[in-house]
Amino acid sequence: MANFELMKNLHVPGTTKIVQLVLDGLGGLPREPDGKTELEAANTPNLDALAARSQLGLAVPVRPGITPGSGPAHLALFGYDPLEYDIGRGVLEALGIGFDLQPEDVAARGNFCTVDEDGLITDRRAGRIPTEFNEQIVALLRDVHLPGIQTFVETVKEYRFVLVLRPTGNQTLFANILDTDPQQLGVPPLPARAQDEDSEPTAALVNEWIGAARKILKDHPPANSLNLRGLAKDPGLPKFGDVYGLKAGAIATYPMYRGVAKLVGMDVLPVAAEALEDEVETLRNHWDEYDYFFFHVKKTDSAGEDGDFERKAGVIEHVDEAVVPAILDLDPDVLIVTGDHSTPSALKSHSWHPVPTLLWSRYCRPDGVTGPGGAEFGERACGRGSLGVFPATDELPLALGHALRLTKYGA
Amino acid sequence: MANFELMKNLHVPGTTKIVQLVLDGLGGLPREPDGKTELEAANTPNLDALAARSQLGLAVPVRPGITPGSGPAHLALFGYDPLEYDIGRGVLEALGIGFDLQPEDVAARGNFCTVDEDGLITDRRAGRIPTEFNEQIVALLRDVHLPGIQTFVETVKEYRFVLVLRPTGNQTLFANILDTDPQQLGVPPLPARAQDEDSEPTAALVNEWIGAARKILKDHPPANSLNLRGLAKDPGLPKFGDVYGLKAGAIATYPMYRGVAKLVGMDVLPVAAEALEDEVETLRNHWDEYDYFFFHVKKTDSAGEDGDFERKAGVIEHVDEAVVPAILDLDPDVLIVTGDHSTPSALKSHSWHPVPTLLWSRYCRPDGVTGPGGAEFGERACGRGSLGVFPATDELPLALGHALRLTKYGA
Repeated sequence: MANFELMKNLHVPGTTKIVQLVLDGLGGLPREPDGKTELEAANTPNLDALAARSQLGLAVPVRPGITPGSGPAHLALFGYDPLEYDIGRGVLEALGIGFDLQPEDVAARGNFCTVDEDGLITDRRAGRIPTEFNEQIVALLRDVHLPGIQTFVETVKEYRFVLVLRPTGNQTLFANILDTDPQQLGVPPLPARAQDEDSEPTAALVNEWIGAARKILKDHPPANSLNLRGLAKDPGLPKFGDVYGLKAGAIATYPMYRGVAKLVGMDVLPVAAEALEDEVETLRNHWDEYDYFFFHVKKTDSAGEDGDFERKAGVIEHVDEAVVPAILDLDPDVLIVTGDHSTPSALKSHSWHPVPTLLWSRYCRPDGVTGPGGAEFGERACGRGSLGVFPATDELPLALGHALRLTKYGA
Repeated sequence: MANFELMKNLHVPGTTKIVQLVLDGLGGLPREPDGKTELEAANTPNLDALAARSQLGLAVPVRPGITPGSGPAHLALFGYDPLEYDIGRGVLEALGIGFDLQPEDVAARGNFCTVDEDGLITDRRAGRIPTEFNEQIVALLRDVHLPGIQTFVETVKEYRFVLVLRPTGNQTLFANILDTDPQQLGVPPLPARAQDEDSEPTAALVNEWIGAARKILKDHPPANSLNLRGLAKDPGLPKFGDVYGLKAGAIATYPMYRGVAKLVGMDVLPVAAEALEDEVETLRNHWDEYDYFFFHVKKTDSAGEDGDFERKAGVIEHVDEAVVPAILDLDPDVLIVTGDHSTPSALKSHSWHPVPTLLWSRYCRPDGVTGPGGAEFGERACGRGSLGVFPATDELPLALGHALRLTKYGA
């Protein structure tokens, strides 16, 4: 039986509450072989005290050695195997700018590019035009109209934009369509080619839009052409409530994470501003309404991407001070502290390293393991914890177990 | 998506170098419950210093509790699930004697046996005849000729030989054919029976060869008959270069390991003689030509099979002195030290115990775990390491991640 079937069959109602606190890009690396990671170096008395009462482990987001993007990494945290459930690039890009995607929409990531007088690509990123220029030409592209279709063109940044096609009548769009980007220079863009019969009318519409758009762009070098990639629809993921029987609320300030939470059927809760304190306020305000909260902290990842060890440690300290005690004050039944992937400041990028993870509930077996700083929440302590090195997709089933929300399997 | 698809889709070119140092049968057992294993008892200052800067874990070659043969164990180290990819026994036996098997060949393991006057088997191993006698009768069997087929008969040892059929024309041979060995006494050998229509002409050829061979053997008791087992062809495994994008060189002195490396598409490099120093010399001479090296050490296993604890520890010490510093001097980007399986001298055979494994790269998180000897490379330290107890098939994906040779999965 697949895991989701198991969850659907076994979950039972309850009044217990689960919080999954996700520090984006939490995992790190030491600066010297015998040094501490960002998490180990951060002064985190609250997380350390919690770790002493918790089980620890290292979560593998996708598979060993694989560096995940944010979409797949979050699906894994929500229990969806990211190799089985795929959110297309166009959909992720639309979610990333906060576009209110509908189930019937087809979304594509667009790249402006430069072509020569023969129509051959000379720059796949149109010289990385400034975002302001992107906004000007995107405004012009909104004049392209298709029969029976509402089109949305939205700036992402530099040479990137999003195109969304939404049927106005009963037409169903299909998105099994290849990229137009040939991924090389000196050749023309490809037409949008349908990969199945259902997708052919949509491909024809896409090609019609591309043709009209290129006519407008030809007078606007270096962005005198464009490519579309990752055409996709809402993947129709199983919904969190059906799978786990949990009413789920998402607290995140960045559009991409709010979007993924929405795709799995969570309610995305309003947050007044971007500060951690605003997210905590949202958690307090909605505490009674939900069984499960996804609480997302973005800035650990941004600091890691910038290669800023101290700033990443500082964000972790801020979470320790402003978020962890506030969550504990609400008296959750299960608290998981984890990350979607590692973003070591030493690499300035996402990485394949498994993610330090802590699971606390009144029914957990505290590990009592220690790291270089004694009893603490850190990569090395987690490497010795009793959760072991485990698939991130196990977090939700474990949380449900600890929340007494799964009945016995078999007699 | 299967793991190999993931590897094929994500691997990127690079200049980094990976070495997988395989001490055959590395894992061991203590002589007394509170004693040390062979690896723990060995004096290994270089491996211990490396372990302090590495991640440790215990690799499971096939599945928990399963004792692997050398073929499946090596496939696992190379990332090929040995339950999915099968090298037939006939092929393994041919590789084991260094036979230059071609893709069109059908190979079988042969056993001489004794039959009574009614043709009923009285000894399935022909009294374990001496190898010299085997060589004499194998020479006689080379006189058996089949139409359109070149036959090879080669001594393995005692009662064991290899038969290879190679088509000389356009005929394709198929090997879905059952063993002739009934695995019991008092019954006659079975005919070679095809399990599909394609294999019927090959089975007919095999039966023709068996009939002629038995006529020759009937005057040579106790080897007055024979059985064929494990008829098989080169399984056409996915090739290392396609899967991982690595140019791979194999350094091994025993035919069997050279053969398996060849089946997965590695270049098998010449080694002047059998000493570890000769293998190191080959590594040095070819360092610039390959992305990945499989470096095989045989004698740990042989000592374990002989039940010789001290000799096995001694081989490990020799590797520590003659191989480990030499590899580090070449400045690899990723070094894995592992075994294909355990061969505890206490058991005098392969065993199911997971295999101590060390992964070093400049991007690894050193575990800082200790064993009975402090910071060291040993079974108990590995049992506390952050690689956990992991499938051996994860080693290559992890190596590629640490070598920065996999791009991000998803956006």
